[in-house]
Parts: sequence; C-alpha cells; structure tokens
Amino acid sequence: MAVGLTTAKKLLPIEGITLSTTHAGVRKNNKDDMALVAIPADASIAAVFTTNKFSAAPVAISKTHLSKNQSITHLLINAGNANAGTGEQGTENALQLCNALAKYANTSLASVLPFSTGVIGEQLPVAKMIKALPVLVENLGADNWLPAAEAIMTTDTVAKAISKEIRINNQTITITGIAKGSGMICPNMATMLSFIATDATISQDQLAHVHNALVEQTFNSITVDGDTSTNDAAILIASNNVEINEVDDAALIEAFESIYKYLAQAIIRDAEGATKFITITIKNAYDYQDAKTLAYDIAHSLLVKTAFYASDANWGRILAVIGRSKLNRLDIGRVNIFLNALLLFENGEVAKNYSENKAAEEMEKDEITLTVDLNAGQKHATIWTSDLSHDYVTINAEYRT
Amino acid sequence: MAVGLTTAKKLLPIEGITLSTTHAGVRKNNKDDMALVAIPADASIAAVFTTNKFSAAPVAISKTHLSKNQSITHLLINAGNANAGTGEQGTENALQLCNALAKYANTSLASVLPFSTGVIGEQLPVAKMIKALPVLVENLGADNWLPAAEAIMTTDTVAKAISKEIRINNQTITITGIAKGSGMICPNMATMLSFIATDATISQDQLAHVHNALVEQTFNSITVDGDTSTNDAAILIASNNVEINEVDDAALIEAFESIYKYLAQAIIRDAEGATKFITITIKNAYDYQDAKTLAYDIAHSLLVKTAFYASDANWGRILAVIGRSKLNRLDIGRVNIFLNALLLFENGEVAKNYSENKAAEEMEKDEITLTVDLNAGQKHATIWTSDLSHDYVTINAEYRT
Repeated sequence: MAVGLTTAKKLLPIEGITLSTTHAGVRKNNKDDMALVAIPADASIAAVFTTNKFSAAPVAISKTHLSKNQSITHLLINAGNANAGTGEQGTENALQLCNALAKYANTSLASVLPFSTGVIGEQLPVAKMIKALPVLVENLGADNWLPAAEAIMTTDTVAKAISKEIRINNQTITITGIAKGSGMICPNMATMLSFIATDATISQDQLAHVHNALVEQTFNSITVDGDTSTNDAAILIASNNVEINEVDDAALIEAFESIYKYLAQAIIRDAEGATKFITITIKNAYDYQDAKTLAYDIAHSLLVKTAFYASDANWGRILAVIGRSKLNRLDIGRVNIFLNALLLFENGEVAKNYSENKAAEEMEKDEITLTVDLNAGQKHATIWTSDLSHDYVTINAEYRT
Repeated sequence: MAVGLTTAKKLLPIEGITLSTTHAGVRKNNKDDMALVAIPADASIAAVFTTNKFSAAPVAISKTHLSKNQSITHLLINAGNANAGTGEQGTENALQLCNALAKYANTSLASVLPFSTGVIGEQLPVAKMIKALPVLVENLGADNWLPAAEAIMTTDTVAKAISKEIRINNQTITITGIAKGSGMICPNMATMLSFIATDATISQDQLAHVHNALVEQTFNSITVDGDTSTNDAAILIASNNVEINEVDDAALIEAFESIYKYLAQAIIRDAEGATKFITITIKNAYDYQDAKTLAYDIAHSLLVKTAFYASDANWGRILAVIGRSKLNRLDIGRVNIFLNALLLFENGEVAKNYSENKAAEEMEKDEITLTVDLNAGQKHATIWTSDLSHDYVTINAEYRT
C-alpha cells in the first residue's frame, strides 16, 4: 500500500549506541513489541513531544526526566499499548518499568526515557514487560537498528529507517534514524515516534536548536487526518564520538535535513489507506502562519482529500478552502493554483487554456504537488499529506465488524 | 438514506407570498431547476450569507441589492449551477437574468435577489434561463412551497420543508420554511440555502436581530465536513400581514426556533452518506468560543466520525481531540464525557463502571448525543453533525469513475 516506499536495506551503526528488541506480549501477534536503546551517559539529546493536553504517562515521565538535566542512558519503547488515558495507575506502571530497567542496567530512574505507542485506555501488562527487560539488556548490539524499526511498528506496513554518511568540516559523520507512522489503530490511536542518532559531537544546546528547526519543517509539516496523538515524540541523539569542531546550526540542519524529510515523508507514504503522496506548497503568503494555516486547511479538507483519491482536478473545492481559511491577507484576484507544473487557476479565475483532461492526467499520478501562490507576501510553507480512500474508512471504522 | 427524515405532508401558504417553479434545463435531469418567490414590496427581509471569500456572483449581487435599502420583490433561485468561480462573466450573467426578470415582473433590478446552487466553475446557461422567466412569473401561486423545496434540491434525497401556526400575543401567525442541504456535488460543491417566511408584521431591524440569533444557533451550528460553500444563504421574510404589536426578540426567537432547528437538522439528517444523526453538546466551557471550537473540532475529526460510523465507543479519539483543541481553559482532570446518558469518562479517567458493551449499545442507535462536560465555566454549545461512511467517500470521490 505504501506510496513509493521500501525498507532501507542497510542501516549503519552509530558509535556508542546499542539497541535490542524482544516480544514481551504487549500485543497479541508474535512480533517484537519492545525495544531498548542504550546511549552513552555523555551523549547529547534533544526531544520534541506531542502538544496534546491529554498526553500519555510516558510523555510526562520522559519530559520530567529530561528536565532534570542529568544524563540519559536508556530509551525504553513499547508498541501495542499507548499507556494513555490510564490515570495514576498508568504513571505508576511506567515508573515501575523504568525503575526495573534502571536496576538491571545499573543506571538511575531519571536516566531512562519511556515511550509507548498503541491502544489507548488500557493498562500496560507490567509483569510481562519487566520479565522481558533482562533479555533486552543482554542483547544490546550496535547492528539492531532495523529490528528496532520493526519492533515499534503498529499499523505501519513498511519499517521506516534510513542511514547516511555525510562529510562535514572534513569529517565523516554517520546518521541513522528510525520512525513509526501516525496511522490510527484498534481500538484507538497510534502515534508518531522517531529516533535519530549521530556519532558527531554536538552540544546539548545546539542539538536542541537543530532538532527543533528540523521537526518544524518535517514532522510538524505532515498530516494524515489532523488528529495529533497523545504519545508523539521525536528524539535526536548525538553520541559525541566524532569531533566536528565548530559547525553552525545551518550546516547541521543541512546535514540532517534529508534524514528528517525521508522519515516524515515515509510516515505519510505509509498512511492508512493512502493511494497518493501529496505535497502542498503555499507560496508568497503574507506571513509564515498564513502559509501553514492554508496548507493544513487544504490538507484536512475531506472534499479535497476525496478528490485526490478520485484523481479529480476539482479546483472548486480548493478555492472553497482558500475562501474559508482564516488568513491575515488574501486577495482572491491574485490567487494562482498549480497541479504539478500545470496552471489551473490564474488571478482569481480558471486559467485561460485550462484543460480538464490535462489536469486529470496530473491527478492520476501517485505523487502530486499542489501549489497555491497567494501573491500576498514572500513566505512559503510545504506540508505532506495523503488522500482519503475507502480503505481509510475501512481501517478506521470496521475493525470490530 | 436520510436519518429519521420524511418530507412535510402539508405546507401552509404565507399571505402575500407566491412561488413558482419550472425546468429551464440548468441541470441535465428533468426535475425543476428554477424557482421564483414573489414578496410584497413592503415586506421585511433579513439575510445571512456565506463568509467564504470566494463567494459566488449571486451572493455578491444579493448583498448589493439588499444594501440599497429599497424594497425587495423577488427571489430568483436556480439549482444545477452555482455561478461560482465564474469571474466577471458570471456577474454579468446573473445581472442579465435579474434584469430580464425585472422587466417581465415589472419591478426594478435592485428588487431582485438571485441565488444559485450546484456546479462551480461553469457559466450559467442564461438564454435558457431567460426563456423560462415568463412561465415562472405567470405561474406564481401561494401553494407552491413544496414544489419550490423540490426545485432547489441538489444531492438532497428528501425535500426539506416545514410549516407551523403559532399563537403569539393573541394572534395566530403562520411560518413556512424550505431548505436544501450542504451535500457536495459533482463536480464541485453544493450549498445550503434556506428560505423562511411568516405573515407576521415584524420591523426590518427586529427581523434581522431574530434571524441572526437563530442562524447562529442552527444553520451556523451544523457541519458535514467543515467545508463552507461559496453560495450559502439563509433568508427570513415577514410579509407584514398579521399585526402582532410589540413582541420582544426573545418571544420571536422562541416562535421561530423550532422551524430553524428542524431545517438545519434536516440538512444533517440528509447529509451525504450519513448513517447517524449526531448531536454534540459541550457543557460548562470557560466561554462560548471554547464550547463551539471544541464541538466543531470533535465533529470534524475523521477518527471520531469513522468511530460513529462503526458504532465504536472510541473515547480515546474524543480525548485526543479535546487535548489538541485550542481552548482558553482546559483542566483535563475535570473532563466528563457522556454518550447519551451513559458516563464514559469521569474526571480525566475512564469511568469506574465503564462497560464497553453498554457503550456499544448506545453507539448502535441512529441518533446519538455526545456530551463533553468541561467543568471550566458556564457556557454551552450544541451542534449537529453526521458520521463518515464509505458512501461519503463514494459520493465525493467516485462520480467520474
């Protein structure tokens, strides 16, 4: 089902970082459902979490542990249960798990970050999970990135992972990242999780700047259906093994950008029921907020999403969204709309040599870029989304029938 | 398909108001596609139009004619073509039609209000429509409310109409209203139109107050998919034949409320692909804006809509929406969620004696009320919406395949 997405063949280890996976029985099938990532105590780490106010127990705990500003040594991840909407018991369960891991791994409670993804509203099977911890600690290895990518999958159909070697400041650094998708799963929602690591030496502060900027452009620029999860988290780790001396933020952003972009796009390519991968670019908006608001409003329109599914170049539906979007500046007489390179709508009217057949040809493609040029300023935004298919409804509605 | 909706058997005439319909050929099938409403020159009239900035030519013309503050004598409505996204030619076409009608009906251009609903981006077949005008003028009659309700239908499956006699200030007044739905139609969007009339004598100013208040509570409290149309219009006419002396706004709002509510709900009951009629009530919000924002965010969530379709009491999805909704005040520990009378979620946690079976029983019903009590203030809002079914995707995606 995934649009133009295959699993990475080879993932490069990151010096200082080891991983392991196991099947603890959190989910019913036999696939691994727990993953452990061990990182050096002196690594740098940057994190962005969901802004959803009903955030899950592990999100709250991870934030607390990170705020204590001591070294993080382990990331403990499970799939199959989100530990969200689980109240105080949920928090106790997550802490109990972290405590048990701290004992087995000879670290402190506050050095463990927990992550969960899966069903909302059910308590974690803590006993089973604690039993699995010694195996996870024993099996830690540098070459387990792909098994980890597979262990954190929920409704994902393809494991999402990528590696790169990059020359920066006359040094070769390695970056490897894994992610899981934002599909929504029985009986509740799943989550976007992303873990990216490099062997480069980057200060805590700089890593946070770079990570925040990249998350805004990538993981915060994708949408399947507009529903943020209670558990979303994106993590960037620098194991600080390869000295790259003073490199500015821009150079680091450039180095990491393709990794972030690949993983964010992979989530959309593998979105539930997706038959198209759609890029929405708003050009020349009055301000960045206008550009992003309009991009998301178009991406969330059920009518636009079903038109993409039907390969129907229905510019009337796009116009209607532009007209209702709460923009700071809009001059409808200056709006141009392009489908890939084809001009559909020009200066507020249908383009002079508009051809429904040509437009339909563009819409038939698996990968489509919709560009709206507002001619109201100089700010741009790009987001990635999927179409709305019968399969989306089936996946999200029919699992009980 | 419509959920609990049948066409009104008998519609009462409104003294002073006559209507007619005909098939002019705007749409391909043989159903009537034009309607004319003639009202007394001294009638009062109140109007609310779409806020979409890409509003259609007839919307702009109707607004201009109403702003000239002279008497309105005719409403000319067509289905099958929205005259939207049609540029200057669209405006000229609509004006040409209004001018021709003014000549046949012996009135002035500015006394005619045009309304259109149907396909976006195609020019009106003006010649055919002008040919139909003499028949419309000749056939005006007081008993044609139901044919008019039928002539303005697009993807509606049931004509939406209602009549009532009401005692007010020791007088009996009659109210009759018709509406068409907000379904979206090949190849673009359709529109919500509503025309309500009474024989009571009500001043222009008071009529506007009453109309605005009722539209906010009813037509502005419904949503199928969050996409506003370029052509939406709601009209209230008082023919000023029955003197009711001084009646305050509240009494008039009470008198008209059930008519507005019936028509607004009818649009949702007949929404494209709807299998459920869903009332969403937000209680005890910090302010009215919070209540309405959250109600719409829940109603627009694809995950919540598919859960309703699947009769799945998926409170995790509702929580996730509450958590992401941009509210001025939210204390998650005080949130209660009810499905009809059944408590699902209490003080931020799943209800103590929550039963999935009992919840599923409530979800199986055709008509469901979801109540979220925020316990953050004293403001309430109620909106009506539909579920997201396979048929919705089919209707909106597959008409060309």
